[in-house]
Amino acid sequence: MTQTRTESDSLGDIAVPEDAYWGAQTQRSIDNFPFPRHERMPIRLIHALATIKQAAARVNGIHGLDPELAGVIEKAAEEVRSGAHDTQFPLTIWQTGSGTQSNMNVNEVIAGIANERLTGQRGGKDPVHPNDHVNRGQSSNDCFPTAMHVSAALALEVELFPALEQLHDTIAEKSAQWQDIVKIGRTHLQDATPLTLGQEFSGYAAQLVAARDRIADCLPRLLKLAQGGTAVGTGLNAPENFGDNIAREIAKITGLKFVSSPNKYAELAAHDTMVELSGALNVLAVALTKIANDIRLLGSGPRSGLGELQLPANEPGSSIMPGKVNPTQCEMLTMVTAQVIGNHQAVTVGGLQGHLELNVFKPMIGANILRSIELLSIGMSSFAERCVAGLEPNKARIRELVDNSLMLVTALAPVIGYDQASQIAKHAHKEGLTLRDAALDLGLVDENTYDTHVKPEQMI
Amino acid sequence: MTQTRTESDSLGDIAVPEDAYWGAQTQRSIDNFPFPRHERMPIRLIHALATIKQAAARVNGIHGLDPELAGVIEKAAEEVRSGAHDTQFPLTIWQTGSGTQSNMNVNEVIAGIANERLTGQRGGKDPVHPNDHVNRGQSSNDCFPTAMHVSAALALEVELFPALEQLHDTIAEKSAQWQDIVKIGRTHLQDATPLTLGQEFSGYAAQLVAARDRIADCLPRLLKLAQGGTAVGTGLNAPENFGDNIAREIAKITGLKFVSSPNKYAELAAHDTMVELSGALNVLAVALTKIANDIRLLGSGPRSGLGELQLPANEPGSSIMPGKVNPTQCEMLTMVTAQVIGNHQAVTVGGLQGHLELNVFKPMIGANILRSIELLSIGMSSFAERCVAGLEPNKARIRELVDNSLMLVTALAPVIGYDQASQIAKHAHKEGLTLRDAALDLGLVDENTYDTHVKPEQMI
Amino acid sequence: MTQTRTESDSLGDIAVPEDAYWGAQTQRSIDNFPFPRHERMPIRLIHALATIKQAAARVNGIHGLDPELAGVIEKAAEEVRSGAHDTQFPLTIWQTGSGTQSNMNVNEVIAGIANERLTGQRGGKDPVHPNDHVNRGQSSNDCFPTAMHVSAALALEVELFPALEQLHDTIAEKSAQWQDIVKIGRTHLQDATPLTLGQEFSGYAAQLVAARDRIADCLPRLLKLAQGGTAVGTGLNAPENFGDNIAREIAKITGLKFVSSPNKYAELAAHDTMVELSGALNVLAVALTKIANDIRLLGSGPRSGLGELQLPANEPGSSIMPGKVNPTQCEMLTMVTAQVIGNHQAVTVGGLQGHLELNVFKPMIGANILRSIELLSIGMSSFAERCVAGLEPNKARIRELVDNSLMLVTALAPVIGYDQASQIAKHAHKEGLTLRDAALDLGLVDENTYDTHVKPEQMI
Amino acid sequence: MTQTRTESDSLGDIAVPEDAYWGAQTQRSIDNFPFPRHERMPIRLIHALATIKQAAARVNGIHGLDPELAGVIEKAAEEVRSGAHDTQFPLTIWQTGSGTQSNMNVNEVIAGIANERLTGQRGGKDPVHPNDHVNRGQSSNDCFPTAMHVSAALALEVELFPALEQLHDTIAEKSAQWQDIVKIGRTHLQDATPLTLGQEFSGYAAQLVAARDRIADCLPRLLKLAQGGTAVGTGLNAPENFGDNIAREIAKITGLKFVSSPNKYAELAAHDTMVELSGALNVLAVALTKIANDIRLLGSGPRSGLGELQLPANEPGSSIMPGKVNPTQCEMLTMVTAQVIGNHQAVTVGGLQGHLELNVFKPMIGANILRSIELLSIGMSSFAERCVAGLEPNKARIRELVDNSLMLVTALAPVIGYDQASQIAKHAHKEGLTLRDAALDLGLVDENTYDTHVKPEQMI
Repeated sequence: MTQTRTESDSLGDIAVPEDAYWGAQTQRSIDNFPFPRHERMPIRLIHALATIKQAAARVNGIHGLDPELAGVIEKAAEEVRSGAHDTQFPLTIWQTGSGTQSNMNVNEVIAGIANERLTGQRGGKDPVHPNDHVNRGQSSNDCFPTAMHVSAALALEVELFPALEQLHDTIAEKSAQWQDIVKIGRTHLQDATPLTLGQEFSGYAAQLVAARDRIADCLPRLLKLAQGGTAVGTGLNAPENFGDNIAREIAKITGLKFVSSPNKYAELAAHDTMVELSGALNVLAVALTKIANDIRLLGSGPRSGLGELQLPANEPGSSIMPGKVNPTQCEMLTMVTAQVIGNHQAVTVGGLQGHLELNVFKPMIGANILRSIELLSIGMSSFAERCVAGLEPNKARIRELVDNSLMLVTALAPVIGYDQASQIAKHAHKEGLTLRDAALDLGLVDENTYDTHVKPEQMI
Repeated sequence: MTQTRTESDSLGDIAVPEDAYWGAQTQRSIDNFPFPRHERMPIRLIHALATIKQAAARVNGIHGLDPELAGVIEKAAEEVRSGAHDTQFPLTIWQTGSGTQSNMNVNEVIAGIANERLTGQRGGKDPVHPNDHVNRGQSSNDCFPTAMHVSAALALEVELFPALEQLHDTIAEKSAQWQDIVKIGRTHLQDATPLTLGQEFSGYAAQLVAARDRIADCLPRLLKLAQGGTAVGTGLNAPENFGDNIAREIAKITGLKFVSSPNKYAELAAHDTMVELSGALNVLAVALTKIANDIRLLGSGPRSGLGELQLPANEPGSSIMPGKVNPTQCEMLTMVTAQVIGNHQAVTVGGLQGHLELNVFKPMIGANILRSIELLSIGMSSFAERCVAGLEPNKARIRELVDNSLMLVTALAPVIGYDQASQIAKHAHKEGLTLRDAALDLGLVDENTYDTHVKPEQMI
Repeated sequence: MTQTRTESDSLGDIAVPEDAYWGAQTQRSIDNFPFPRHERMPIRLIHALATIKQAAARVNGIHGLDPELAGVIEKAAEEVRSGAHDTQFPLTIWQTGSGTQSNMNVNEVIAGIANERLTGQRGGKDPVHPNDHVNRGQSSNDCFPTAMHVSAALALEVELFPALEQLHDTIAEKSAQWQDIVKIGRTHLQDATPLTLGQEFSGYAAQLVAARDRIADCLPRLLKLAQGGTAVGTGLNAPENFGDNIAREIAKITGLKFVSSPNKYAELAAHDTMVELSGALNVLAVALTKIANDIRLLGSGPRSGLGELQLPANEPGSSIMPGKVNPTQCEMLTMVTAQVIGNHQAVTVGGLQGHLELNVFKPMIGANILRSIELLSIGMSSFAERCVAGLEPNKARIRELVDNSLMLVTALAPVIGYDQASQIAKHAHKEGLTLRDAALDLGLVDENTYDTHVKPEQMI
Repeated sequence: MTQTRTESDSLGDIAVPEDAYWGAQTQRSIDNFPFPRHERMPIRLIHALATIKQAAARVNGIHGLDPELAGVIEKAAEEVRSGAHDTQFPLTIWQTGSGTQSNMNVNEVIAGIANERLTGQRGGKDPVHPNDHVNRGQSSNDCFPTAMHVSAALALEVELFPALEQLHDTIAEKSAQWQDIVKIGRTHLQDATPLTLGQEFSGYAAQLVAARDRIADCLPRLLKLAQGGTAVGTGLNAPENFGDNIAREIAKITGLKFVSSPNKYAELAAHDTMVELSGALNVLAVALTKIANDIRLLGSGPRSGLGELQLPANEPGSSIMPGKVNPTQCEMLTMVTAQVIGNHQAVTVGGLQGHLELNVFKPMIGANILRSIELLSIGMSSFAERCVAGLEPNKARIRELVDNSLMLVTALAPVIGYDQASQIAKHAHKEGLTLRDAALDLGLVDENTYDTHVKPEQMI
């Protein structure tokens, strides 16, 4: 950062790195919020802001902005949106709570690129002004919440839904394959009546279908955009129908069905829909925890656990124990879900503290939602591919546990009566016998009767 | 509890209060979980369990249960459901995690009532047996989750939605009344461009509409019932179509559109839908916090706060200060919302810890959901009636703040240019002048021009 | 409530039940906050307020209050503190956020009792006035936070510490008894090197010692009282040294070492110490969850789980399966801990929202802390008595799992080398052999060498 | 990654970038957990692991490890610890829950550096083996929890305590400067009796002192290290006194008083102390939220808010409104605190899910603690420097609000009686008069009496 140029704002001049496209307000934020690089604003939010600028350039180009300027702004915004300038957005999450500085960062970089195109000089405010032209008809107060919705909706579409479907499909396939493998059920972690391994996994698949439905149910609200509300929701300084027009252009650019929110006051002052989406991700996290925990439990062993499933060996579990395969993908996924549950709390705490016309926890809320989506998406996809797809049932072990189970005696109750069935189970438990041996030992049934009635396959 | 009779279960005899309808298993739970009376299982859950028993008696009466027994069971269940025996349910939330003991409490009390009708002897298991007859075709493992859904859905219908609508309507009415009261907007808690008090309140109304939609969006999943899954989800020991038949009867009894869940494994082993509903209540809590906080802020004063709203005086705020009205309903409501946010955390922590075929945090999850609904419902209704309905705008104060605002200068920018407008604002701020005086003082506009353009009414 | 008398406050007259000792302000709160009976303010908070009144009467009696009035107030306060009038406190948690109404409830009841003693007439304000005499030198703003600290410190002393010690001692005793029972260790829920059952339980005991230390570390701050700060922390209208004098009297009455806080502003405006205590209870909840979960896991079975521990049978687990003992005390305790974690969130959300001179989430914060303490105390004591005390190791099963374990091969590595040891383990795993059989089968060691070196007892 | 070399582990060969020091296990983790770069394991944890390796090399060099190898390992570990190889640690938080892969990453890189020194060949296992030599006497299961404690304790020492003290001192200085500025107090956000601005800020300072004490109270437990427990807590394969010796060396290297934990089982299987520390950070977050919120409120305006404080203008608030200064540092800090509260939840959820001998949420827990410390530290320091240090009281506004306050009438009550004082206040409120005008208007006091008694300066 040896070479600099001078940029300015209403507080005066400030030195900016020569190769930066950004201007004074970005530079001031770098200096005023000295957080490290790994705390940067998620790039999806930056791309979403650029999407707004691109859409705004189109609309403004029709409503009074010099078409040449509109064109060059749109071109620069498109580049930023597509990821060509990602290094130009050094600001972190921890800044103004309205996200104003990231909005200005985007405005300044787009102006800086546009000016370079038009004049050969990088940066500056002439002929393209970051506020007057790039931000025309907009305010950070409506841009940032719009970017929160746009980036979250895209992240769901591009990252989360595909990963969730991948995991669902992998589980559903196992469920289908294993529909005839009868195994012991466990309630209270205690032996219970049998079911099939396929039925057990069908429960996980059903959880994931419902999880997806819940998240999809947020979309009607998430697709409503704040844009057009400007500073306080009234739309002061925005041309007529700006909200509708820009939502239509954003929908065209992204391919998602965004519309203009009918009440901009609520969109600026609160982020209930983000809290809602966070809550839906929280449910997904809860469901994934259950699923990963079950697979970890069923795969416990190899000798001293439940041992019904064999997990794939992705890495050395221990240099001495060949049978030891640690459930590393389960562990990764349950750590991810704990983080998502924590992020949900952060979003909730930010969501409840809006004041009057503006909630000023926007960057924190937006960043947590995007992190949760990213972690869940990679986590689910990896878990599907590196754990679930490679699961193998230990059929011998599964059969052994069913055969040894005492509660199969339930099937004898209608034949020999409740009390005698109970005696058999007690005798087997006390003496450590199989149920069959105990039944024959007590002389309460003959072999034929026992074998005819005690069939786990008919209890599912 | 001087007089007792003897009841028994598989562990042996136990003394039960003579006037109790319950039996041995209920009594054992009283002794084994010595929590105080205020920790009792919510009565709505008990009523929902009785609803299941009533529905089951109808279905069982057609499918093999002696019609006389079915009839007397249905009658007793109907009484319990209607609240005629509420004192017979002494068990607390803190018991077996499957809710088995409350299910048995309901089974025993219904059997005890039925037996009294049939024999004159209270309690016992003959001729009506709590397990064999009242619980026929059922397991605690499917009854309790069914009761969780039934009780929550009814609480939404009977308590929450009416209270939410009452609050919405009260706020919407104020919004309509105040649509022409122009006031200062505040972003970052700093003076911003104006809006009307009606617009501000329209944001609250919009938040409540969305909050209701979110909760209603849970219903398709909440109306799916676990009943029919019995012990592990396979439906062992339940007659064919028991789940469908009982859901239909429950729907008839309650008037809500319950159906049988297509996957019972997930319904027993996880409570994702309860976590979802808790999350929707969490969003409502977040929205209410924002609304109550804003009203508290706008009503702050009387002399040293914002003072734009006058809150109704429901109780003496202070014995010495007649102008002091504490925002007690706001305080009640924000305490309630903090509790709901905490309850959501408890539900999440319980929801993520299911193991294999059963989640054993059921009573805790169910109780928190019902408490959140009850607190929110009473809180919203009281807040609507005792706070919002009585709000009065302090029009003089509102006008004074708008008139003194420096940012009205925005309206002059198109006329005299950005720089000169900025000079006026700076001059006013530095010298403590009104904007008008500052403008005239600097000679940058004449009175007529100023008065023509600077009209807050046109900035909304 | 057929018979009433008339009481009055600055808002006018109001009818009060004839047999109530309370006055107009209590009655207004009943009417203004229509929450049900199970939401009542915890009685410990009421008793703590009465403790303050008793202490204040002593101090005021020396500093200007008519000694006769002081005497009768002290006597009435002592009765309330001791629980003789618990039905006289009908107000709920959900009221003014300063707890003013419960403070007035206590003032009014004490005045009402005192007046009855002096005049034969229940209630009223003469000769003992609830504000001027009972509340003399005090404000709700300092009384309520003082009561929060006093009630929490007493609940720790009387409820939580004894229960925590009971559980610790029960676990430590088991740890000592089981110090020679060698068992398989499990990491990642996978078989690992051995340890003794006593060592495993020593970890739980160590967790509980640390948990107690953490809670005790809060005491230096919890024992500091807000009393003497009056309305905003300045102590206006309180006599000199009132804070010190009253803390000294409260210490005498309660036997705990309360002192006056050096900064009253922080004590009224924030409840960081309550959030801290809640956080310490949260750690205890986390530790108890781990302990109860482990016992549930070790007790899983009887045939298809880990089966190393036999849990006591406190109630019928199932009418058909004598071996099935549900871990009901574990389930109760983990539900309790989930609630405590949720309560911690509610306390945190309330704690962060104080404004200027007063935090107005006091009743909610105080009630959650007291509920957490009560639930944890009863939960731990019951868990100790009804679960841990009755645990029995299944020595045969424990030995079988150790003997079958593949990782005992670790002990051969120094003798025959890493690679050959690894071959043995692989061979055993692949062929389903015991380690000994696999070793002999491969001819890599002789019987004598194997038996000399592979001794789990020496690996702990 | 064009050029590669081959490394191997028990699963076989794998290609590693030629310039990497790491080996096969690190490379496998990169491939198996495809999370992005910004999710990397915090570098403080890597440095702490290297600290352990350095200490272990010292201890092992005395107890059997070839002194030449010990020397080169210590040297390489010291380089890693000091940050010379930070790019060699590409693994993310989301991996095995024991942190095994990051432990192996450190082992492999140190071995790789040592081997390069000794042989000129980067990487490999000869002559220095990552497991046999670098990891000698250790297990990931004791190394990673040790690194969690070491890194957290250092982060507190180096980052958090200095920043907390900086903020405390800045606030305490303001409190001292402003000790005579009498201002209106506000309770329930309503006007109350006066205090000085210095007193108000003394409350914040007191909160920060207590916050530091709470965090420091965690140190006795945080300074206890798991090292020496190896795989399950028994210390199998570690030389005698390894735990004590290594703790002593770590203490020497870091300058902090680390000791060996007396119970290793609890240290591996649970992270209660990390949950505790997280809880202490949660209290700090709560306190900072209160402080930042108050400053935001007191600085609200400039014309339509409370306006008692003037915040420094660090960046343009708005291009048109010179008086508008957004409280950007308050917003940054309250977003940070919301995140810390969320992180606390993630840590709690991870902390409660340990199983038997190992908690497998270690990387997630460690990373959240370190992120919370870093965010709080930078946040507090920036807030101190860029907000609190530049605060200026608006004395005219403060005086105006005190003078207009109605509750100064309290001072007349002892002179003219409660009822007449109340009449004055009511009259002033109703007619919009100053208290003085109202008093004189009613003829209840003369000018002299009023001016003698109504002195806010005497009410503090």
